[in-house]
Amino acid sequence: MTIQDRIWTAALLIIGDEILSGRTQDANLAYLAKWLGVQGIRLKETRVVVDDMDAIGSAVKALAGTHDYLFTTGGIGPTHDDITVDAVAAALGLPVIVHPQARDILAEHYGENLTEARLRMARTPDGASLIENPRTKAPGIHIQNIFIMAGVPLITQGMLAALDGKLQGGAPVLSRTVAAWTQESAAAATLIAVEKAHPGVQIGSYPFWREGQTGANFVIRSTDPTQLSTVAGALMQALTDAGITPIDGEL
Amino acid sequence: MTIQDRIWTAALLIIGDEILSGRTQDANLAYLAKWLGVQGIRLKETRVVVDDMDAIGSAVKALAGTHDYLFTTGGIGPTHDDITVDAVAAALGLPVIVHPQARDILAEHYGENLTEARLRMARTPDGASLIENPRTKAPGIHIQNIFIMAGVPLITQGMLAALDGKLQGGAPVLSRTVAAWTQESAAAATLIAVEKAHPGVQIGSYPFWREGQTGANFVIRSTDPTQLSTVAGALMQALTDAGITPIDGEL
Repeated sequence: MTIQDRIWTAALLIIGDEILSGRTQDANLAYLAKWLGVQGIRLKETRVVVDDMDAIGSAVKALAGTHDYLFTTGGIGPTHDDITVDAVAAALGLPVIVHPQARDILAEHYGENLTEARLRMARTPDGASLIENPRTKAPGIHIQNIFIMAGVPLITQGMLAALDGKLQGGAPVLSRTVAAWTQESAAAATLIAVEKAHPGVQIGSYPFWREGQTGANFVIRSTDPTQLSTVAGALMQALTDAGITPIDGEL
Repeated sequence: MTIQDRIWTAALLIIGDEILSGRTQDANLAYLAKWLGVQGIRLKETRVVVDDMDAIGSAVKALAGTHDYLFTTGGIGPTHDDITVDAVAAALGLPVIVHPQARDILAEHYGENLTEARLRMARTPDGASLIENPRTKAPGIHIQNIFIMAGVPLITQGMLAALDGKLQGGAPVLSRTVAAWTQESAAAATLIAVEKAHPGVQIGSYPFWREGQTGANFVIRSTDPTQLSTVAGALMQALTDAGITPIDGEL
């Protein structure tokens, strides 16, 4: 395996009772996954935990230790249920400090309205650096291999934009989709044969039902664009041979 | 703690590369969370893992052992990337069998088109019972405290309907929302004071930004409807006292 072939991995920890109660639909997982894909990093696991020091701490230890990067979303606001900074610091065995640069950012933004509650948003684990928040100023936090982000999607996306191109990654995983109006079970043997014939390529099968019709998208994934094109052609031919009319693209 | 007070917990394991690549937006977490709430069961943790035997197996062992119920979604179709049944069986140390009743259901549905690929959907861990699938027939699977469900939301929802009222649970967690057009940091001290004055109640704070305005929903949670009403009144009074105009309901 060359350095170029090294696979860089990430995990996401979503923190918040509001996600696990079903009140709020998470939107950060899908956005982060695609953003990581562009950086050449693969999202390998996600966990969602309640606003609880132990639950957050255990997940942080488990995920930061087994992936190149860990991202967290949620729990960094000014209210009493925002305990992510304390939980991450405790998991890392670090004290929590008021970060001087973060305090300056908030002081400039809030002026004389910088209350004690708002000052909570300047607290970080000792030794952290800040992630710019272009929308609402209160910064994200980078400590070791952990990136502590906001829960509100627009703010999270602003923080990710500030990290664009700054994380070390490998070759991005590319994908190409071949589809068919078929039950996926009719294509099952074909998918196995084509995947086996092309090592390094993965083919996922994603069925759907629309307007009374059954179809499936077959997503081919590889880091090699040439191979992707070869396999798409091979799959379309094999589906045709099996009596299924393929479509070059997604349904 | 009386039997009535016992808290019943569940975890959700979402299985699938398509969720972790960002290709598909999960819709099962929020639906299951609300459905569990009605059954008096609390969703305490969710994990999302790739289509990999070890990743699924480790998560099954960790989550089934620490919650009353574990639900899985995804990976029970007819294609080669559908390995949930094998992974759960391996985690439990059980052989995989072709379930006679599931084979009968599929045979009746597919007739002479019951191919080897489709027969994969009759495979279960030994000793399992079936969960009815009113939409596409291929059943879900119940083994020990684990419920193995489809990934396609409409199918999952049909399976949950078949389980309605059949799981033992406790008192449902009720919620009531008080809101205000305010920065949540301005309400932070008030929230702490009201929560502390009412043991057994939790208040979550969820800020938002709409059309250039800042607001927050304060969600009060309790299993006691009378207490919920008392705390909503107390919170509205306390916000008013703090110079914030409360709204009785969600913004």
